[in-house]
Amino acid sequence: MAKSVLTPQSEDFPRWYQDVIAKAELADNGPVRGTMVIRPYGYSIWERMQSDMDRRIKEAGARNAYFPLFIPESYLTREAEHVEGFSPELAVVTHAGGKELEEPVVVRPTSETVIGEFMAKWTQSYRDLPLLLNQWANVVRWELRPRIFLRTSEFLWQEGHTAHATEEDARLYAKRIHEDVYAAFMREMLAMPVVLGRKTARERFAGATNTLALEGMMRDGKALQMGTSHELGQNFAKAFDITYLSDEGRQELAWTTSWGTSTRMVGGLIMAHGDDAGLRVPPRLAPVQVLVMVVKEGEGVVEAARQVVDDLVAQGVRAELDARVDTPFGRRAVDAELKGIPIRVEVGPRDLAEGSVTVARRIAGGKSAVGLRGLVPEVLSALDTDHEALYAAALAHKDAHTAAVATVDDAAEAARTGWATIPWADLGPEGEARLAESAITVRCLTMPDGSVPRSEDEAGVLAVVGRAY
Amino acid sequence: MAKSVLTPQSEDFPRWYQDVIAKAELADNGPVRGTMVIRPYGYSIWERMQSDMDRRIKEAGARNAYFPLFIPESYLTREAEHVEGFSPELAVVTHAGGKELEEPVVVRPTSETVIGEFMAKWTQSYRDLPLLLNQWANVVRWELRPRIFLRTSEFLWQEGHTAHATEEDARLYAKRIHEDVYAAFMREMLAMPVVLGRKTARERFAGATNTLALEGMMRDGKALQMGTSHELGQNFAKAFDITYLSDEGRQELAWTTSWGTSTRMVGGLIMAHGDDAGLRVPPRLAPVQVLVMVVKEGEGVVEAARQVVDDLVAQGVRAELDARVDTPFGRRAVDAELKGIPIRVEVGPRDLAEGSVTVARRIAGGKSAVGLRGLVPEVLSALDTDHEALYAAALAHKDAHTAAVATVDDAAEAARTGWATIPWADLGPEGEARLAESAITVRCLTMPDGSVPRSEDEAGVLAVVGRAY
Ligand SMILES: [Zn+2]
Ligand SMILES: [Zn+2]
Repeated sequence: MAKSVLTPQSEDFPRWYQDVIAKAELADNGPVRGTMVIRPYGYSIWERMQSDMDRRIKEAGARNAYFPLFIPESYLTREAEHVEGFSPELAVVTHAGGKELEEPVVVRPTSETVIGEFMAKWTQSYRDLPLLLNQWANVVRWELRPRIFLRTSEFLWQEGHTAHATEEDARLYAKRIHEDVYAAFMREMLAMPVVLGRKTARERFAGATNTLALEGMMRDGKALQMGTSHELGQNFAKAFDITYLSDEGRQELAWTTSWGTSTRMVGGLIMAHGDDAGLRVPPRLAPVQVLVMVVKEGEGVVEAARQVVDDLVAQGVRAELDARVDTPFGRRAVDAELKGIPIRVEVGPRDLAEGSVTVARRIAGGKSAVGLRGLVPEVLSALDTDHEALYAAALAHKDAHTAAVATVDDAAEAARTGWATIPWADLGPEGEARLAESAITVRCLTMPDGSVPRSEDEAGVLAVVGRAY
Repeated sequence: MAKSVLTPQSEDFPRWYQDVIAKAELADNGPVRGTMVIRPYGYSIWERMQSDMDRRIKEAGARNAYFPLFIPESYLTREAEHVEGFSPELAVVTHAGGKELEEPVVVRPTSETVIGEFMAKWTQSYRDLPLLLNQWANVVRWELRPRIFLRTSEFLWQEGHTAHATEEDARLYAKRIHEDVYAAFMREMLAMPVVLGRKTARERFAGATNTLALEGMMRDGKALQMGTSHELGQNFAKAFDITYLSDEGRQELAWTTSWGTSTRMVGGLIMAHGDDAGLRVPPRLAPVQVLVMVVKEGEGVVEAARQVVDDLVAQGVRAELDARVDTPFGRRAVDAELKGIPIRVEVGPRDLAEGSVTVARRIAGGKSAVGLRGLVPEVLSALDTDHEALYAAALAHKDAHTAAVATVDDAAEAARTGWATIPWADLGPEGEARLAESAITVRCLTMPDGSVPRSEDEAGVLAVVGRAY
């Protein structure tokens, strides 16, 4: 229906992406290069991601706090690998309060360092551990080639930072976040079948001893890293002096982790589920699950539509009324498709005279007449089905575009249209370096059954290889 | 009980404030001068403020969005009064991405200008109005004399920005936020009897045609501005070209408003309700309403305490278990008082043998034995009563420290310990200027019945005069 509004995906995927963002009113470029304005509809999607993720993080025992935007430049240099990872991306404040600052301050690219400083203050004895913190904040990493939601100079995220008494406890917590929080969220809310794995040494976060990642396949076959959970060993504990008195009375270094997800997930959602008619938002995530539309005026039509909204809301459905009959119906329907609203209930005088309405489904596709009496259960069941259908479609797409290969050349060939899996023992850091010359990377190392290897040397470890955003 | 932990209010109120913030683990100074770290307990209070305020803002029809942290320097100079109001407070980024920027960017002190720019883009016709936006964000205003929560170089806030077709519509919306959102929130959630009024020309927001404010009295008799709602006339619409096509086909300038509340409210909460034992958090706001404490180990004690928590949670009470019996009970009780947790339920072996527990109330004061059977209804009713009691106490304090006076000298005298009300016709801008020499300001202009005057010339307008944070 809305085919002509957007550049087709098959013609030019990056342009399709930009078109959706503009036409669905998700976001806009900010006035300072690389920044973005998240418009109300885009923000309402992020807000729903945020509140569900926040609940899961709290269930995992972490507590929210807020640390300053500005970090003394000297903090960043304390952990050598960390500053190397970030220095070209930093934004620096040199003037404030009408004069030049004695020590310039950096706008946080992440809060590892300042949180490390305070963890050291708050951690006295083993009783204070584990210390489980999370923060929702904006961070800044100057981008030379910005792309809305995917790579912007400022983005919104949550960053978790924890300190533990033992390596094992830190390892298990990083894994818990990776699997029970992030993967579960992406599966249950975003309807995305992400691949879980660990990063190779080459792809690891600067300063981490292990980086766990979640990789989603986009509709063009490329990968998007949807989140990461890092074991930081004792690197940050050493740099920031996070020590504690053990129950045996010895001063010990803590073990830390950090983990994050960001507004980048909105980009992933668009590219994993969108089609040529626009966005498709998974029902559990959708800010508006059902748009009840007055097709045109007529006796009792608006009242009937309002009643449908009320009946749906009473059953916990996020339903909204669209009674803007002065705007052509076709335009409103196209707009709802662009925005990916899962279900439209169209209420018009003719149908209504026969006691029915039309239900149009964005995800399953198709329209059908439904009697008013059976509408609510029909909608509830459609929302459930649609979540599963979206997940299944994304999974089928991923499987269809993933080839099991045995050589570096075949991996490179597969990466033209999707991913390759190749035994890590066969690829190794050398094969990885060769692929990198063509901008193909090892997205993660995973086990054939989808579990996460404890080390890259485990028997049977597979490298998932592809191009990435 | 906890008298010795804090400096008494009567001895040194500012020091008492700092003590509470440290001892109740609310916040800490950040490493960059003037910034703050909001610790988990402090943040949990802010989070509850935020979610309730957000709900009210959405009920008033505004939608959340997110605009960039960085603003081109040139934007700020477009509205002349606006830049004058802010320039000494600005933090400026001159270097990013490893080089000097061609145009320095300012870290937002407020988002008026950048939102104005986008409102202009999004407003085409009268059908797009009113445009009601809100943003939760951090902002930066360099502070020479910072004080945690009250004046920090970075703070968290919500800023609403709206555009309307008529002056009347803008006026009514600014009033709706002032009264139905802010005042209701402060009364119903913070248990604070704020005074509503309009600012004098001298105290108005730079660029506003009218500033509506909410002023709370602190326990030391000083005022704290808890929130403001501004009518901006057509000043910003002119500067940013926010125009629309009217239904009569004419190009018209819009009328805008802006309104904000911030982490400053946490400071207001502390100073309005706190006492020598610590914070007192109103029950509806409290992250933990009831702390169920295991006094000491004993047969079935932990189980009984856990059952109490479950029973309370089942009734919608935010209850938590404290079973840290390795920490002395007295210390845990003092800590709960410092944090202002409204109710402690103390479960010990002796009471339990008689089928009862001890209920200690932070707000009403006192302890009593309560049978396990009657505990839940007792707690529910205490939480209701405590909200009212806290509000009533704050109101009585305000009334007791407000004197109706007739001369400037008497106003100055009253401002030593509290507020004065004086007819604005008698005070006037000249009297206002005289008081300002002693750092006494007109907090707002209000009517004798507590309503807000439409103009400062209305008959009977009173000036509320005092010292302020
Ligand atoms: Zn690092
Ligand atoms: Zn201004």
